[in-house]
Amino acid sequence: MSEFGFVRLDGSMANDLSVVNSARVSFAQSSEELDEKAKGLINFLMRERHGTPFEHNAFRFHIKCPLFVAREWFRHRIGSFNEFSARYSLVEDDFFAPAKEHVRTQAGKPGAYMFEPVSEEIAENTILDIEEVNAYCYEAYQKLIDKGIAKELARTVLPVSMYTQFYWTVNARALMNFLSLRNHQTAQLDIRLYAEKVEEIFQEQMPVTYQSWVANGRVSP
Amino acid sequence: MSEFGFVRLDGSMANDLSVVNSARVSFAQSSEELDEKAKGLINFLMRERHGTPFEHNAFRFHIKCPLFVAREWFRHRIGSFNEFSARYSLVEDDFFAPAKEHVRTQAGKPGAYMFEPVSEEIAENTILDIEEVNAYCYEAYQKLIDKGIAKELARTVLPVSMYTQFYWTVNARALMNFLSLRNHQTAQLDIRLYAEKVEEIFQEQMPVTYQSWVANGRVSP
Amino acid sequence: MSEFGFVRLDGSMANDLSVVNSARVSFAQSSEELDEKAKGLINFLMRERHGTPFEHNAFRFHIKCPLFVAREWFRHRIGSFNEFSARYSLVEDDFFAPAKEHVRTQAGKPGAYMFEPVSEEIAENTILDIEEVNAYCYEAYQKLIDKGIAKELARTVLPVSMYTQFYWTVNARALMNFLSLRNHQTAQLDIRLYAEKVEEIFQEQMPVTYQSWVANGRVSP
Amino acid sequence: MSEFGFVRLDGSMANDLSVVNSARVSFAQSSEELDEKAKGLINFLMRERHGTPFEHNAFRFHIKCPLFVAREWFRHRIGSFNEFSARYSLVEDDFFAPAKEHVRTQAGKPGAYMFEPVSEEIAENTILDIEEVNAYCYEAYQKLIDKGIAKELARTVLPVSMYTQFYWTVNARALMNFLSLRNHQTAQLDIRLYAEKVEEIFQEQMPVTYQSWVANGRVSP
Repeated sequence: MSEFGFVRLDGSMANDLSVVNSARVSFAQSSEELDEKAKGLINFLMRERHGTPFEHNAFRFHIKCPLFVAREWFRHRIGSFNEFSARYSLVEDDFFAPAKEHVRTQAGKPGAYMFEPVSEEIAENTILDIEEVNAYCYEAYQKLIDKGIAKELARTVLPVSMYTQFYWTVNARALMNFLSLRNHQTAQLDIRLYAEKVEEIFQEQMPVTYQSWVANGRVSP
Repeated sequence: MSEFGFVRLDGSMANDLSVVNSARVSFAQSSEELDEKAKGLINFLMRERHGTPFEHNAFRFHIKCPLFVAREWFRHRIGSFNEFSARYSLVEDDFFAPAKEHVRTQAGKPGAYMFEPVSEEIAENTILDIEEVNAYCYEAYQKLIDKGIAKELARTVLPVSMYTQFYWTVNARALMNFLSLRNHQTAQLDIRLYAEKVEEIFQEQMPVTYQSWVANGRVSP
Repeated sequence: MSEFGFVRLDGSMANDLSVVNSARVSFAQSSEELDEKAKGLINFLMRERHGTPFEHNAFRFHIKCPLFVAREWFRHRIGSFNEFSARYSLVEDDFFAPAKEHVRTQAGKPGAYMFEPVSEEIAENTILDIEEVNAYCYEAYQKLIDKGIAKELARTVLPVSMYTQFYWTVNARALMNFLSLRNHQTAQLDIRLYAEKVEEIFQEQMPVTYQSWVANGRVSP
Repeated sequence: MSEFGFVRLDGSMANDLSVVNSARVSFAQSSEELDEKAKGLINFLMRERHGTPFEHNAFRFHIKCPLFVAREWFRHRIGSFNEFSARYSLVEDDFFAPAKEHVRTQAGKPGAYMFEPVSEEIAENTILDIEEVNAYCYEAYQKLIDKGIAKELARTVLPVSMYTQFYWTVNARALMNFLSLRNHQTAQLDIRLYAEKVEEIFQEQMPVTYQSWVANGRVSP
């Protein structure tokens, strides 16, 4: 039982210069280095929401997260996914349970929810409750498998807290859209923890683009 | 507990003539009726895999199915989805359990699995096992809700057998791709039951296109 | 020679209620009519940029416009296109020339161009110049055709002012994105004339969505 | 005047191993090298048309080609484009004219065209005809520019033989689809010359995938 899987950059073709050069092809020009004028161009493109020059790059991530997080992730259609299949492989005994400080209650109304912490006692017994369900379901799954039931049918008794893993390949424009939605206060906390890791990697790989995106309100261009 | 939710056509802009006219714009021509020559054109386009004329139509479906089926459905990126959210609403006590004749065991190796029925006794107690897990998990979910835990966190204890519902809007080209994969012997049986219903609706709405697709090996153009 | 071709709605599956119902599926609810609460929901979705509920509809347009306008149009990837082909059919003697009041000069610098009218005399002789090129090129094209040169090669001498026609099928979300860019002061005037017609049709078909989009700054959700 | 521009690989994140590892994530497995079993897996995926594992890579091309070729290229929606803009920059005196051996006539009927060479004399004077139009149009363009007419309007007199350039970023799955259509006997010869260069680069970067694609009939998975 753990709260977090992993976010690993498996490969990339990403640098700020590709933004500049794919934009400058409009003028039949190109650059070999990222000078101040080039940085200004990136900021202009971001501010004016000229998004296409931010597509000429790629990030390939390998991610492990709970299924209910993956469900939100896979809604992002501009990108490529391949995922673990419980039709083909046995699911391992590996499930999500929240950290104590992340057990929460909900206040407010639709469109404007607020989440607030619960007492330490409730947090602790909530975690125990969740772990108990996870263990119970996994045992039921194993029992069905042992009985010879097809994996694809046996897995239907597993909770959405089960861990899954996948490859995700995406360009910076779609990545910024993902981050603007998933590393945002209205996102579910559990996916935010992953989006924060993704954001760190994005910042390392394309620092000028990243700074410009933050400076322009974290709106995907 | 039931094996099937529903597939409902909520709206459509679909007819075979739109295929013909969007193809004939290549020649600056159009037709008002679907004569034999027009039918021949549809067959030519299908056979030669000129896919774009099959995109000028739309089907809006309202679907209710188990979450593990929806997970496969949402992998189809060319189309639009909006789904029930267990972040915002309470999940109802409504879960999948297979029909007796659909409880199955798996034989063969990766890439060439075979599914075979089990004995009536095993089928019956498998259904009982699954229903027991469903009931157990739903009770745990309600207990967490009663304790004040946020819906988005409480739902993590629910199994992928829970029912969800969604709107899906898709064009005939993407629909044929969906059907070629999901109403196919290698698809998981549980999604095939839905794909069969979708196929019936497609056949009713675009009968000439449908016949041509079947005659050409059910390959999406 | 003319400045404008046509924009014709060939079919649609579009109404404001589909936005409401595809959004309300999040709560497992639906409506049969568009009351004030439903209108408020559309406005909320637009303002908060929840874009997916605006995808469950479709517009099929038949458009005739100059090739240099079509070139800008086809950059919009979320949608379906089928176009006249000069590989298969003879191009007709039908070319764009600007209206006198639309002949313009350009001032300002990259990223902030301004366009200003020219004198009546220059406008008139510019139109004559353009018409002369169109006639010259079309004659050269016919000469190559008469000589037996393949249509696909002969057409290379035709100017981008030539008229083309195409079918375009698109949903309201992508349509709003198109309008936000192409019916905007930074768009080329010649495509704006078309975008204005598209906007009128959009307004007729989905009036509540349209009003909400305008009220929220014409930003695609 | 020339028949060919260029195809340049500007960057890539492409290797056969990414196909294997993104497929093996289905089984929660991965490889560090491309052994025989891995090659067999690539062939299996290609043959059975499991296309998604071929998406976890990227090629960024810089291409210069005539506008009528670019028009066909830009119809491929799964990928990213940024192009030279004749709204912002002056067009150079750089136009396509066919090589003598590529001047052709067309026989056959729609859907089954054949192209045949013409006599040397016709080939030669066709090239002269085309070059004359190019020169005439460019002079008309310059005259409009000198008169102060906006670039975006002046360019309307230029023929589709004019050269343009663009960045194109695409994954291997979409690339194979492009090659299956554009390096095919039914494609226009002029784009085939470019598709051949693209194919060479694809072969160098992902040799196992390439061989498998060829062995399986050049059908995009």
